[in-house]
Amino acid sequence: MTGLRTDLYELRMAASYLRRDLTDRATFSLFVRRLPRRRGFLVAAGLDEALAFLETFTFDCDDLAYLRDVVGFDKPTLTALSVLRFTGDVWAVPEGRVVFADEPLLEVTAPIAEAQLVETGLLNLLTFQTTVASKAARCRLAAGGAQLVDFAFRRTHGVAAGAGVARASAIAGFGATSHVEAARRYGLPPSGTMAHSYVEAFPDERAAFRAFAADFPADPIFLVDTYDTPAGVRAAVDVIRELGLTGPAGVRLDSGDLAALARQTRAILDDAGLTGVRIVASGSLDEDVIAGLVEAGAPIDAYGVGTKMGVSHDAPSLDSAYKLVAYGDRPVLKLSPGKATLPGAKQVFRDRAGSAGDIVGLRDEPSPPGREALLVPVMRDGRRLDDVDPAGAVRAARERFDADLAWLPESARRLADPVPLTATVSPALTALHERVAARVGVTSS
Amino acid sequence: MTGLRTDLYELRMAASYLRRDLTDRATFSLFVRRLPRRRGFLVAAGLDEALAFLETFTFDCDDLAYLRDVVGFDKPTLTALSVLRFTGDVWAVPEGRVVFADEPLLEVTAPIAEAQLVETGLLNLLTFQTTVASKAARCRLAAGGAQLVDFAFRRTHGVAAGAGVARASAIAGFGATSHVEAARRYGLPPSGTMAHSYVEAFPDERAAFRAFAADFPADPIFLVDTYDTPAGVRAAVDVIRELGLTGPAGVRLDSGDLAALARQTRAILDDAGLTGVRIVASGSLDEDVIAGLVEAGAPIDAYGVGTKMGVSHDAPSLDSAYKLVAYGDRPVLKLSPGKATLPGAKQVFRDRAGSAGDIVGLRDEPSPPGREALLVPVMRDGRRLDDVDPAGAVRAARERFDADLAWLPESARRLADPVPLTATVSPALTALHERVAARVGVTSS
Repeated sequence: MTGLRTDLYELRMAASYLRRDLTDRATFSLFVRRLPRRRGFLVAAGLDEALAFLETFTFDCDDLAYLRDVVGFDKPTLTALSVLRFTGDVWAVPEGRVVFADEPLLEVTAPIAEAQLVETGLLNLLTFQTTVASKAARCRLAAGGAQLVDFAFRRTHGVAAGAGVARASAIAGFGATSHVEAARRYGLPPSGTMAHSYVEAFPDERAAFRAFAADFPADPIFLVDTYDTPAGVRAAVDVIRELGLTGPAGVRLDSGDLAALARQTRAILDDAGLTGVRIVASGSLDEDVIAGLVEAGAPIDAYGVGTKMGVSHDAPSLDSAYKLVAYGDRPVLKLSPGKATLPGAKQVFRDRAGSAGDIVGLRDEPSPPGREALLVPVMRDGRRLDDVDPAGAVRAARERFDADLAWLPESARRLADPVPLTATVSPALTALHERVAARVGVTSS
Repeated sequence: MTGLRTDLYELRMAASYLRRDLTDRATFSLFVRRLPRRRGFLVAAGLDEALAFLETFTFDCDDLAYLRDVVGFDKPTLTALSVLRFTGDVWAVPEGRVVFADEPLLEVTAPIAEAQLVETGLLNLLTFQTTVASKAARCRLAAGGAQLVDFAFRRTHGVAAGAGVARASAIAGFGATSHVEAARRYGLPPSGTMAHSYVEAFPDERAAFRAFAADFPADPIFLVDTYDTPAGVRAAVDVIRELGLTGPAGVRLDSGDLAALARQTRAILDDAGLTGVRIVASGSLDEDVIAGLVEAGAPIDAYGVGTKMGVSHDAPSLDSAYKLVAYGDRPVLKLSPGKATLPGAKQVFRDRAGSAGDIVGLRDEPSPPGREALLVPVMRDGRRLDDVDPAGAVRAARERFDADLAWLPESARRLADPVPLTATVSPALTALHERVAARVGVTSS
């Protein structure tokens, strides 16, 4: 990946460090400062792509020519950048784990120029996928046992984001995606029905359903709301009987009062003896709409969730930060109002057997009794420590999320007014913070 | 671009059309159904990438193997897909033009399988960039004459989205971007200062500023809020004087009460005779915060606008649709509640000399007197009609937006409670709609 996929200030700072031989190893901590109002927890995601980004970070000849001609970098700096690779160590919370505010998702330790250059890419990749996985997790909590399908591709933030959304929602428990390339890449079941345009391309609804069922007899799903939903359901019933379909057929409702239409549809299907035909709902769904439908007892078997999940509509970003916490052998911090940071490389200790809040401590302090350490080493000297294929990474992450979801207290799980667990700071970290703050207070005055 | 970058249902519908030789040309219309609450207008964007997507849409051997092995497509379908290219015609609103609800941004006419397969990609690319350009335009309206810089890359929805945001915000009038690769690709000025970590990597603030100014004497911008803002400004003043800098230096405020700090900073700078040193503000800015700062008379010369613009925080998507409006020689429509469509290929007629609302009519009806037609042909037989480099496309789009912004009535421009212009339907289109609705009403009963 081109090293120009970064902010200019990262390049300027790196150049400045390289010119004056500032090569001490720096530790940066990446964390989310505050959760959005309607999030009781976050689902860590994006690490796999972030590590791939670190492994491939280089400047090619065109990059260096641009930095020379447009940005004005001098020859020694360009020479230094031409051989620069990411050679650092990374600790991170594995994907799929539940995390809260002020807990490091990832910590980088590397020569300061390298650690600085990768800031933008790391923040971008972890923030995006964590944002979407956390939104998708709420849809899963709302849906009870019903299946969830990612329908977001058409309105994600660009084509590449569509694959990220498919992946992040799969980690949170979505069972399938409409995005075919993402399904292939991540080993997910691809899922798809028909559009209104298909129905309109035939002389009438029955002709369209007949053609579709003839072409996809194994698992046709008929879109029944193009003209009039109950009439559409009856047309689907006729075609299913006429063709003698016995596989897992379904009908999709995409507009109108979904709860009422689902009940009406179920009755028509059951009256026709088609109790095995599933009802799929779609159309501007999010966790609140799904929860309302479940609450109303709507007999819906699967939800196609699109835009509002894929852009995390109510909270399309997270207040993430990537902050220097140690340079050389010196822990550092920042005192800016509302943006203060804690010094030193960290660890998060979780009460896995109970539901006490996490403890944020120093990486090298011993784990308190009964506590599990969340951050694990994932990269050493610029090389990944795991070797998992993309599908395997998603599967493992989803299993971790399943386990963490079972652990998560109801107060943090609930959709309305969730209360995130609050992390506390260990005595050792508190003591370090006080020592460093006192030193900075003197230095900067 | 791989043909698997689509939703599975597009592939299934295309397969079904190909199998039964349904090759009539279909026209699809892409439009936004409703504007978000706080949008008085949209800025069309994304067309350049959308046309590149159409030109490169193909299925390679791996794609076809996946469709055979996992999706279960048969050999005749795979053969048909292996030679499928987009061969259609496209009309579109040029990038940078102001548009409103229910106005086609783009219309595709192609053999129905092709037109269907590209739905997902077209919706994705146009929706994303139009969403962001429209948000960025509000920041421009808020900022008055101050410069705007795109700082969003670190929290856009993935790395690729960062380039899309740089491009869309440039169309809306942002003057620079922090995203170096995007700056190169689109010919934008790259812009960057320093991070708090840079200040912290030195023994004190003065040492950091001195090093940065030595390395970038032409245009250093000092980040002054790491410890204490007024002290930071005084440190910057000392370094500027000490090194005798005479170029366009600046200071950046990134936290705290920006209006009060900007006034205090201006006073310190002016007292030191540094009236030419600029003040840059950043930190969770959006159009409302910027408008508040401008209103308060804060002496800020440039705004670095990041996440809230880059994810269009208050409205991270648009209610876009891609609807079949004609098939063969038959205009079609959809009657679903809240999602009804108008039949036929369309044109938008604008009152460019006055401020009456647009008229949506039929493509082949004559332009009403004094009205300008918004949609122009941009692709014929799958080939683009223009041949503009990426930087030239952005420049031309920005000029179009400048012109449209000057035309836009104040009621649609204002930030609070804007009132979009409402499009009316031409008599010819109304008549066609009535005829087709009557026919469908009979057909589907």
